[in-house]
Amino acid sequence: MLGSHIDTVISAGRYDGCFGVLAALEVIKVLNEKKIETNSPVVVASFSNEEGVRYQPGMLGSSVYSGALNLADAMNIAGVDGSSYGVELERIGYAGDMRPGEIVPGAFLELHIEQGPILDQEAIPLGVVEGVVGISWWEVVINGSANHAGTTPIEMRRDAGLAAAKLVERIREIAVKVGGDQRSTCGMIKYFPNAINVIPGKAVLTVDLRNSNEAGLAEAERQLMACSKEIEKSENVSVEVKMLEKVSAVEFDKNVLSTLEQVAASLGVQSRRMISGAGHDAQLMARICPKARIFIPSIGGISHSPEEYSSPEALANGGNVLLHTLLSLAGIDEKNQTPE
Amino acid sequence: MLGSHIDTVISAGRYDGCFGVLAALEVIKVLNEKKIETNSPVVVASFSNEEGVRYQPGMLGSSVYSGALNLADAMNIAGVDGSSYGVELERIGYAGDMRPGEIVPGAFLELHIEQGPILDQEAIPLGVVEGVVGISWWEVVINGSANHAGTTPIEMRRDAGLAAAKLVERIREIAVKVGGDQRSTCGMIKYFPNAINVIPGKAVLTVDLRNSNEAGLAEAERQLMACSKEIEKSENVSVEVKMLEKVSAVEFDKNVLSTLEQVAASLGVQSRRMISGAGHDAQLMARICPKARIFIPSIGGISHSPEEYSSPEALANGGNVLLHTLLSLAGIDEKNQTPE
Repeated sequence: MLGSHIDTVISAGRYDGCFGVLAALEVIKVLNEKKIETNSPVVVASFSNEEGVRYQPGMLGSSVYSGALNLADAMNIAGVDGSSYGVELERIGYAGDMRPGEIVPGAFLELHIEQGPILDQEAIPLGVVEGVVGISWWEVVINGSANHAGTTPIEMRRDAGLAAAKLVERIREIAVKVGGDQRSTCGMIKYFPNAINVIPGKAVLTVDLRNSNEAGLAEAERQLMACSKEIEKSENVSVEVKMLEKVSAVEFDKNVLSTLEQVAASLGVQSRRMISGAGHDAQLMARICPKARIFIPSIGGISHSPEEYSSPEALANGGNVLLHTLLSLAGIDEKNQTPE
Repeated sequence: MLGSHIDTVISAGRYDGCFGVLAALEVIKVLNEKKIETNSPVVVASFSNEEGVRYQPGMLGSSVYSGALNLADAMNIAGVDGSSYGVELERIGYAGDMRPGEIVPGAFLELHIEQGPILDQEAIPLGVVEGVVGISWWEVVINGSANHAGTTPIEMRRDAGLAAAKLVERIREIAVKVGGDQRSTCGMIKYFPNAINVIPGKAVLTVDLRNSNEAGLAEAERQLMACSKEIEKSENVSVEVKMLEKVSAVEFDKNVLSTLEQVAASLGVQSRRMISGAGHDAQLMARICPKARIFIPSIGGISHSPEEYSSPEALANGGNVLLHTLLSLAGIDEKNQTPE
């Protein structure tokens, strides 16, 4: 019997996405060391630009692979530094010649840290993810009038920076008003000209809205529009609200979920079902194949931060569940097994 | 008799500081063309880094020249782009060998656009500036906790960006509460890491406070400290408030002011006394010599903006008052005059 073969996953548990890839490589290493052949081939996939920091939208590689985004359109995307996604992929040697969707997996497994506090708080070592929240990303551009900070009377100001600040407060309130698992965040802001003695004439900010319930997400979007209109009037500025990206809520494959739960139970690893608040490549891959996601605890629920941490034991648990679920889904070719 | 000799000042009235220098050069051109020798020598001065955009504090050249800031300390200042002020001055050939304060002027005249709406609204072509508001500049650093925008529940957030936004609103309220000619502005803001799907873990912003009344300015500073403390508690973040620069309110020389008014009247240019809301090199030079400032109207009170504009007639008025006030203060050497 195979048992638990992954004692260590080569990862400090930082940074979130790295862990899944390293665990997948560890699984391949175990298969090779144990000379295990599976009935279905196993592929390790790491999609580029999942975070969407340098190029927007995020989940870019999996969007193209799953057919949600056209390849040529993706290659033409300009980054925040003015660079071209396509040119940069060529430069680093990552623009391969495999066609998007060329391999359609029988099942897709994604191992990830929770990036939330639930497993850590409840001391449960494994999360079986049933689905992912819907996400909508927005850019808000506010135009007022740049003017001298020392001389311009308050009643004459059209302060785009102040309007942006008021909108940031209203964005937070959206989560409170909509309730449920609604989240609402302003993560980026920029003032123009951004000088200490100049009233900002322009401000740009982003909004991240998420909800597992599509009606709730639609209500959050409606509130974003409404408070933008209010601030446009009260601050005498113009406010443009533009959608950057929208990903619908996704439910994962029930059969893969059952397999995951059975494997975890057989390894003695307690698990619970949960919804993922973070979008990932998995929800794009769900367009073309059955898929599921495995969560391990994030200490303190912290992620996207230098303080992000998951224990070596948590990493090994995740790796072992990944290994055995993969073996269950891919099937072991018994004829080629080396006797133990 | 000399009369009005400046019909055109070579300047489109943009950008504020350029006008004064171009008018001064125009004055020298007229003196040369008319072969007028003054009893006291006339110097055109243009101090570097008056705005304080790339290097802080602003009014850097005049601070060093007037002894308010040590030369070596100034040369070591690092810019927002990481460059060194001293190295950059050397590079562009502006690090001359004249000692700070080497020439102590008998009087210092500064011609400027008002950068405010008063002259334009009252249709008065000339402002005789009696003094400058006191200015204090602050940097506020807010530290919270960066975390995932999609997963972190509201009650677990320590959102430095939201705290900054709330502070920006409170900063605007300071001007309303203190009243008088108090101004309060947040012109710069930055979030870290500044990513669409990350709750800001850190935010940095600047505050510009101005008042012609020193007690009022002190009250504004006290309110900045108080609301920073309140936001520190309510948002569960740390807030550090650091003074970047402080310039006291300045009263200009009464004799120079009288000369200015007499000259304006003799040229048929209506004038009024006023306080300047913008700090400039003149208030530093007031440390070492009698000085005054002349304002011309800014259309719509706009400045520090691409929409800044003053009419050619307004520029010529300012140049002529500058010319004749300078002649009155420097004295014409009658023996060397070319007969007209």
